[in-house]
Amino acid sequence: MNAQKLTISGRVWIHSANNASLGKGKIKILEGIIKFGSLRQTALDMKMSYQQAWKIVNELNSDFENEVVILQRGGRDGGQAIVTEYGLKLLKNYNSIQKEFDIFLQNHSENLNKDF
Amino acid sequence: MNAQKLTISGRVWIHSANNASLGKGKIKILEGIIKFGSLRQTALDMKMSYQQAWKIVNELNSDFENEVVILQRGGRDGGQAIVTEYGLKLLKNYNSIQKEFDIFLQNHSENLNKDF
Repeated sequence: MNAQKLTISGRVWIHSANNASLGKGKIKILEGIIKFGSLRQTALDMKMSYQQAWKIVNELNSDFENEVVILQRGGRDGGQAIVTEYGLKLLKNYNSIQKEFDIFLQNHSENLNKDF
Repeated sequence: MNAQKLTISGRVWIHSANNASLGKGKIKILEGIIKFGSLRQTALDMKMSYQQAWKIVNELNSDFENEVVILQRGGRDGGQAIVTEYGLKLLKNYNSIQKEFDIFLQNHSENLNKDF
């Protein structure tokens, strides 16, 4: 075994039927929407423009089979954003895959260093 | 279960102690070197410039604890390239992790679609 440790990292994406991708960044947007109930606040929190966040959410809605986020216009704070039941299911699945992937990476990191 | 299938994809990287990364692209370079015995031929095959391939190989050599590729200058075809024993060990480990990761992704893709 070696003094200088090697590590393993990785990323996973869920893809729609037309191969659009849902990864870490978009998942963070969905979690922001759940937390703040607002796309504007989520964009602020993620230091991205509202336009950028809006574009991402709209692409998710059109690329995946069902609506992922409902955007309600108007009101004092520029309208509510709600993650749909379908969106919540995607989020739950992504996070569960990511959790098992973290264990996979951890185990393989340990094995890797045994070989060096 | 849904008609429109969701899929999962992913990528893995091995990192050196100073966090330099070894992923799919660099692994392909190592495999090219093994196949052709030449960095020039490998670069040609991968449609990248020799300079680019040379830079990547040199970074691998300085970032990882041991030399990954030996470049021998001179000779009719511009010198041989040899993947070291250390490099072969990295390659073998990467490919074995990737193989298990493919199974991971396959299994989780199937489970994912059961939930939709």
